Amino acid sequence: MTGAGRASWRVGGLPRTFTKMSGAGNDFLVFGRKLPVGPREAETIRRLCRRGTGIGADGVLFVSRRERGAKLVVDLDYFNADGGPARFCANGTRCAARFAARAAGAEGPLTVRTGWGEIPAQVREDGNVTLSLPEPIALDREVPTFDPAGRVLEPSAAFLTVGVPHLVVFAAEGVEVETLDVASLGPPLRRHPDLPSGANVSFVSLRGASRLSVRSFERGVEAETLSCGSGVVAAAVVSGLSRGRTPPVSVATRSGSALVVDFRVEGSLARDVSLTGDARFVFEGTLTEEAL
Amino acid sequence: MTGAGRASWRVGGLPRTFTKMSGAGNDFLVFGRKLPVGPREAETIRRLCRRGTGIGADGVLFVSRRERGAKLVVDLDYFNADGGPARFCANGTRCAARFAARAAGAEGPLTVRTGWGEIPAQVREDGNVTLSLPEPIALDREVPTFDPAGRVLEPSAAFLTVGVPHLVVFAAEGVEVETLDVASLGPPLRRHPDLPSGANVSFVSLRGASRLSVRSFERGVEAETLSCGSGVVAAAVVSGLSRGRTPPVSVATRSGSALVVDFRVEGSLARDVSLTGDARFVFEGTLTEEAL
Repeated sequence: MTGAGRASWRVGGLPRTFTKMSGAGNDFLVFGRKLPVGPREAETIRRLCRRGTGIGADGVLFVSRRERGAKLVVDLDYFNADGGPARFCANGTRCAARFAARAAGAEGPLTVRTGWGEIPAQVREDGNVTLSLPEPIALDREVPTFDPAGRVLEPSAAFLTVGVPHLVVFAAEGVEVETLDVASLGPPLRRHPDLPSGANVSFVSLRGASRLSVRSFERGVEAETLSCGSGVVAAAVVSGLSRGRTPPVSVATRSGSALVVDFRVEGSLARDVSLTGDARFVFEGTLTEEAL
Repeated sequence: MTGAGRASWRVGGLPRTFTKMSGAGNDFLVFGRKLPVGPREAETIRRLCRRGTGIGADGVLFVSRRERGAKLVVDLDYFNADGGPARFCANGTRCAARFAARAAGAEGPLTVRTGWGEIPAQVREDGNVTLSLPEPIALDREVPTFDPAGRVLEPSAAFLTVGVPHLVVFAAEGVEVETLDVASLGPPLRRHPDLPSGANVSFVSLRGASRLSVRSFERGVEAETLSCGSGVVAAAVVSGLSRGRTPPVSVATRSGSALVVDFRVEGSLARDVSLTGDARFVFEGTLTEEAL
């Protein structure tokens, strides 16, 4: 665009070339290297993730890989759309696993190193990816919900950690989660005064013995996303531990794509928790000089 | 991805390679050719425009160009995010003009042929584009507003056509347009029973002698967009014809990018209407086989 000779390979501190991936409707800009992210890069992430003016995404993945013996090991740094780092993003981790497997020319088992620790992943031939979460998941405590719409939510919600803090809120009996005004219900719960770091908030309707519908309001995106992988895990685990649902639990997300959560109930713990779902390559992109 | 040899140059009937452009925060997938758009391509447009699972865009531009004497003539077919064609999109027309000028290696005056007729455009060195609208713009009539929130809108709204039907709604005195719940206020007005084809809806706060803030709910996108160019024109013209505002009128949009509308008031008509604003190249993309 500038006509001033060889274009820089970076724009705003980030590589010009990227891959857009979508995991159950949660979408990411994927860069095939790790980079130090300072204030300039964080501002670039914010601008690129903004829909309408930038590329548009829920977050950014910086992925690098190396061999450890015969095993592929993937280092993942994750940033939310607001430019801030997050410890864990389940859909992002599935996308990073498939991205690295493709780059290595190998499907099969690998390990993704995230802020939550090492996460074994299995990239399947159909493109689905299964993550084995590194820790058992326990309910933490109940907290009150705030329901400005009145009686569309149950009065209390479950707080738990799936890498990052989550609040699981069940829709009141007879209320379909699809009808909830998540844009209004989400913000006060996401900044719940009993939860100092706030939380991602997932709204749940129980469907059958092993089926849920979930909508999620995400911290860091500060909006509803089409799917939040760790929120789906949180919702499935709570439905198994306190609502008698039987794993594997199939969860319909706002995107139309389903995620499957498997686990073993052991007292008040969910052990051997896994999450399976799609991780699609959508397009390859090259930023222009005007992108920011 | 398939490993089955030479990849097709099309995905779902559309070319694999595209350019993403943004005009004042209204974003478009731009294809450098015209194509017949049948049900299959319309479905592809819907899928590609969906944010989170697809590329994400407010609409799609099919642009082809030819010379007419010394003048560049650009043919533009425009489709909304829902896959349906629209007669006119002002921000899209600005993006198409700049796209064609770059492809032709020429800045300067050109003509864009749209469903609303031939629109002269001037691509400026800084990347801004000015459109000269092909017809004078007249107020049509006043219709009642529906204000479920109560008293945040004035009781009546102005209906007029700027290529496509528009409803201009002023925020009540003391109400900032930034505080309006456009997601709730937009849908009933967009399907106003007095307006058989519905309308785009623009919510307006008067700022100064020549300044407005506008937020727009778009028909076909069925959501608020960061900017609607023809809605901004409609808002500026109504503010000039019935609210004593003096052109050129500078309009702040939700994206942060300003648009400038110039015109001459002649009785109850606005003549020589022009719209100036940015038309940015954001990235070049190549769809994968999995994009749909």
